[in-house]
Amino acid sequence: MQIALEEAESARQRGEVPVGAVIVSAKGDVLAQDGNRILELKDPSAHAELLAIRKACHKSDSERLPDCDLYVTLEPCTMCAGLISFARIRRLYFAAYDPKGGGIEQGAAFFVRSTCHHAPEVYGGIEEIRAGALLKDFFLKRRSEN
Amino acid sequence: MQIALEEAESARQRGEVPVGAVIVSAKGDVLAQDGNRILELKDPSAHAELLAIRKACHKSDSERLPDCDLYVTLEPCTMCAGLISFARIRRLYFAAYDPKGGGIEQGAAFFVRSTCHHAPEVYGGIEEIRAGALLKDFFLKRRSEN
Repeated sequence: MQIALEEAESARQRGEVPVGAVIVSAKGDVLAQDGNRILELKDPSAHAELLAIRKACHKSDSERLPDCDLYVTLEPCTMCAGLISFARIRRLYFAAYDPKGGGIEQGAAFFVRSTCHHAPEVYGGIEEIRAGALLKDFFLKRRSEN
Repeated sequence: MQIALEEAESARQRGEVPVGAVIVSAKGDVLAQDGNRILELKDPSAHAELLAIRKACHKSDSERLPDCDLYVTLEPCTMCAGLISFARIRRLYFAAYDPKGGGIEQGAAFFVRSTCHHAPEVYGGIEEIRAGALLKDFFLKRRSEN
């Protein structure tokens, strides 16, 4: 989660919503890491999780990551929840909960739906305070600038 | 939807689940079109809708497509439903309903959740029989080969 937080901080410095993600293999190696790049790439799918999963798949030469774990600093949205399932991620560790846009514990709650054919083990709230502070600070600054 | 069906047929010929998608601008121009490329790209996010939206954003030099419509041959999944919302797609036209994996009319039903901050107008069942036949034929053949 430390690396994911560093990626979130880098995303903040690029003007993106500060979210970072890391994919770790069964052996504990970091396969991929990235932060949000929505504005930079002009791509609404460029969430940290999606970029990290795509990189890890490319590295593994497979469209599935069945023994891999995902660490991310914010509860994944509905889009990323769908992708996490398709990629067969084994365990999901996330930091801050996202009542406004989360797709795991709220809203679409995709992993408990009958249309979800693979759900990872989920551990939320890890390093929640640090990740939440990064996000709060970002949105406070953005509001004061507008 | 005709072009989307042609993209679905091309996807079938590549060995992919036959789904095609097209993004049309407010003026009626085709901005982007693509079919599933999950196996080809070894990318679990490479659904027809996601690839078409990314291409259209790239072409428009924007991470949002507020005046654009999406035509797709299958009810979008939860992942694509999330992306359609983020991209601010105006209208979604889809062909076959997907009781097993759809994220619009079933399962996550993302557009009616409080965590969804933009929902397009939705029109389902257009050219449903043709799109459904393509999919049924594909899965029947795949099962008979295994």
